[in-house]
Amino acid sequence: MQATVATYLIDRLKQAGLKHAFGVPGDYVLTFMDRLIESGIEFVGTCNELNAGYAADAYARINGIGCICVTWGVGGFSAMNAVAGAYAEQVPLVVLVGGPRTMQRRSPMLLHHGVGDVATMQHAYSHITVASVLLDDAVDAPQRIDRALALCIAEKRPIMIEIPVDMVDRPCQAPGTFAAPARPPSDPDALREALDEVMSLLSTARRPVILGGVELHRYGLMQEFRRLVEASALPVATTLLGKTVISELHPQAIGVYEGGTSRPTIRDIVENCDVLLCLGAWISDINFGVYTGRLEGRHMILANSGRLKISQHVYEQVWIGDVVVGLADRMPKGGLSHPPFTSVSRLLDTSFTVEPGRALTVSRVAKRINAFIGETTTVIAETGDSIFLAADLVMHHDVGFIGQAFYLSIGYALPATLGAAIADPSRRPVAFIGDGAFQMTAQELSSLCRRNSNAIVLLLNNDGYTTERVIHEGPYNDIQPWAYHKLPEVFGGGWGRRVTTEDELEDALAHAQAKNDGPVLIEIMLERFDTSDALKQLGAELSPERGQARVLRKSGASDTVKKLD
Amino acid sequence: MQATVATYLIDRLKQAGLKHAFGVPGDYVLTFMDRLIESGIEFVGTCNELNAGYAADAYARINGIGCICVTWGVGGFSAMNAVAGAYAEQVPLVVLVGGPRTMQRRSPMLLHHGVGDVATMQHAYSHITVASVLLDDAVDAPQRIDRALALCIAEKRPIMIEIPVDMVDRPCQAPGTFAAPARPPSDPDALREALDEVMSLLSTARRPVILGGVELHRYGLMQEFRRLVEASALPVATTLLGKTVISELHPQAIGVYEGGTSRPTIRDIVENCDVLLCLGAWISDINFGVYTGRLEGRHMILANSGRLKISQHVYEQVWIGDVVVGLADRMPKGGLSHPPFTSVSRLLDTSFTVEPGRALTVSRVAKRINAFIGETTTVIAETGDSIFLAADLVMHHDVGFIGQAFYLSIGYALPATLGAAIADPSRRPVAFIGDGAFQMTAQELSSLCRRNSNAIVLLLNNDGYTTERVIHEGPYNDIQPWAYHKLPEVFGGGWGRRVTTEDELEDALAHAQAKNDGPVLIEIMLERFDTSDALKQLGAELSPERGQARVLRKSGASDTVKKLD
Repeated sequence: MQATVATYLIDRLKQAGLKHAFGVPGDYVLTFMDRLIESGIEFVGTCNELNAGYAADAYARINGIGCICVTWGVGGFSAMNAVAGAYAEQVPLVVLVGGPRTMQRRSPMLLHHGVGDVATMQHAYSHITVASVLLDDAVDAPQRIDRALALCIAEKRPIMIEIPVDMVDRPCQAPGTFAAPARPPSDPDALREALDEVMSLLSTARRPVILGGVELHRYGLMQEFRRLVEASALPVATTLLGKTVISELHPQAIGVYEGGTSRPTIRDIVENCDVLLCLGAWISDINFGVYTGRLEGRHMILANSGRLKISQHVYEQVWIGDVVVGLADRMPKGGLSHPPFTSVSRLLDTSFTVEPGRALTVSRVAKRINAFIGETTTVIAETGDSIFLAADLVMHHDVGFIGQAFYLSIGYALPATLGAAIADPSRRPVAFIGDGAFQMTAQELSSLCRRNSNAIVLLLNNDGYTTERVIHEGPYNDIQPWAYHKLPEVFGGGWGRRVTTEDELEDALAHAQAKNDGPVLIEIMLERFDTSDALKQLGAELSPERGQARVLRKSGASDTVKKLD
Repeated sequence: MQATVATYLIDRLKQAGLKHAFGVPGDYVLTFMDRLIESGIEFVGTCNELNAGYAADAYARINGIGCICVTWGVGGFSAMNAVAGAYAEQVPLVVLVGGPRTMQRRSPMLLHHGVGDVATMQHAYSHITVASVLLDDAVDAPQRIDRALALCIAEKRPIMIEIPVDMVDRPCQAPGTFAAPARPPSDPDALREALDEVMSLLSTARRPVILGGVELHRYGLMQEFRRLVEASALPVATTLLGKTVISELHPQAIGVYEGGTSRPTIRDIVENCDVLLCLGAWISDINFGVYTGRLEGRHMILANSGRLKISQHVYEQVWIGDVVVGLADRMPKGGLSHPPFTSVSRLLDTSFTVEPGRALTVSRVAKRINAFIGETTTVIAETGDSIFLAADLVMHHDVGFIGQAFYLSIGYALPATLGAAIADPSRRPVAFIGDGAFQMTAQELSSLCRRNSNAIVLLLNNDGYTTERVIHEGPYNDIQPWAYHKLPEVFGGGWGRRVTTEDELEDALAHAQAKNDGPVLIEIMLERFDTSDALKQLGAELSPERGQARVLRKSGASDTVKKLD
């Protein structure tokens, strides 16, 4: 069969591992959508394009590549925040946009869904993608597609491809073998010197610690990382964004480090290190607990995708994969020395005694869910106290945790739950979502209903934007109280329940475990200022008593708050 | 009191007429939000930023200026589609973004909500605003604010102003008198020659027609326009986007012209003209019925904001305000000649006899609502069949109609209803929204509940994206069926009812008329392919029998459709 621009693009996406595309139809993209569906890629309709973007982002985190398919202008602009998040967190997401015909693009007639000139959307996308291309030439289209897709896969960042309606079925050359792009090799001299220096620091250190970050997952280095960890015998923490780059049941795993919001046992180990080997971790404000991390005076070794930094000097052209493998190879037999430490799985206490009638609290809910999740659970954590709470859940396997821990866009989690459910149906999604965040993208629960997904949504209802109340209270943190648990009735599927006591939660979880034909929405009623330990700690860290300039207040709105934002 | 960057900006916005700001809080913007609230500007929280943008857009259409206030990164990117729509349809919308502190912007630490570098969002905004500025200097801030705001008001397009947290309370010079920017004057020679030529064409024409467009509203020229219309004695149509630039009860008003989708009586008058005087109208695909307008061979006179075009020649530096006034002054006593024509208000038949038990149809619903609306109604029409249907409602007053008739972003109408309700509480919003569009932004009904708005939402439930089904059917046009009428129970306010027959609709409307303490959601059940006459006509226009290349089909998805998209 003669290849066309559409089949070429779709074949390449399938070769890269794509099986589903999320999106919303619109007239400029309908023909392309037909081709997508004919190809066997499943089209998953969402309620709006932003939600499609969030869903595809989570799908890509699990599947290795994700895709949205939307219409020109309105569709592309609506999805931008999800694409910006994918860019920020290095998620390989392909944005396919059906655009006006090539003839129309040259006409002075204003086209519906258009803004500015015909290329405005493409220009806006250039800031949040590694490639923003237009397929307006069938001869050129194959190489434009290949170049963009190679960037997407190599950089783990979004690309945008716009296909004019009349180009969809235009014949073009057939796709050849798909070669996943290779990383440029490390400079061998720089690599050798870097590894020597790292090993010299680690060997003489008394309390070295490894910190694993998200890039290990994105570049598929988790096996190599585990080999390094095991060869080193050192304790290994992860960043919040990198949570589950190693199973938290691993005996060397000590949990998530996030500065002042970390669990104290983890913080003790990490902040008392003398050398911190950070592999694929980002030095972001949140990863380090909004500047509350105390790592001054420690030797920091930062290996990221293309470079390695020790204290203040940088080795360039040193790829993180070579660093991980090189260090694993050089570890002395028996590993390096570190005082005894407690692994996070030893803290895992799956016993939970329900106290009937006892009002629910965040910490008791976390304890209960820690006992509930297992081998076949994926946890999705919403930005806000949900992600702080979920940080301390002990996850049983790799990549079992999805949260936008750096970009922190609230509203992400519910569509992401849809994406996770579709990317790996063998795992049951359990989502933690605050009420404020839930309102942002609430309609996507209906897509979970539509697909009879077995997702469990734990809606933490604390009456407004509690995380922001902790930072800075004001009337803008109030929201309309919904009867969230009634939404399944509206959306025509699933099951909802509002719970206020431990026995009610227990009943709802039992129901969820028995049920498999639609999402379960458990609305967990909490006190307005009942927060996770992490958020409490963050509050204490940032309080004036500790010399910080931020005031934390729990009521009143009008006073000035000196802040550190 | 010492002026600060925040008070300067807020004072200027108040001088420009702003009374409300829509938005969602986020840590970078909280301090600025406090200043906004202290100033007396009312902050209206919405469920997400896109909805804030849509609401502020509708507010601006009525109030003359609108504003959203959101946080850096996630907030700004989420609102982009609404801002792009405001740019496309010339709506003066101010986007206020609280950003990271000036010190933080120079730090290598990755900041949460950030993507790329610290200026990425500002750069992305530069494509969809007439000014995208950063207030990182208190000395410079006043002139940056004034320049941006002047552009917003003069060009009627959005601007984005980013305020770093530490700049909010930084002292700066006090604001002086506010001078709304004047349009640059017309070139007197060009204006004179242009007016002479237009008058010469009109005077010798036998069937000249006036077509009014949206710019007349944006530039506040509606009184002058009415004077011209009356002095001319000619029939006056409007574009869809310009609907209600003149009251449709005016005896010379013949209704909305939109090419092949127009009511036949209007189309006959417009397409049989010999000279068409278009004032402030845009030649967009939708305004002219997706290329179905038949105006070849007519003398077209196109006066837009800064230029006037007759047939193929252009007069530059000719401002539309001078054209409208100049033509009104030159009209001969008694006006120009035109054969007798029927005004649209004569077609207004407010009699409606309910047929109990009769299943509801689009055309009967339109007829019923035409009788229901009155002096104090604002109609909001969603993109899709809703706007086609609403085009033929006879509106009783100026600016009584809000719809995104050019940018056509579905999901706009529900948040826009919130914006319209707040901009002019003396008028009751009546919104027409299709089910697919409603799902996009459904949560904003809760904001109407929260404010006890008396809005009436007529939800046209035809089981999916019917307008797209008419264009091109496929499985992507199916959506999850909701029990929409139960949403008020979830959102904690208002009243909902599903209606399938004329008597049920009658009861619901009676209830709506009696009720004033929350939105009324009437879910109107329709056959899947029951559409407005306009959409049917568009279908017929585009059918292959008429020599067009588009195939309209009502079922089946896989065949290739040759199209005109």
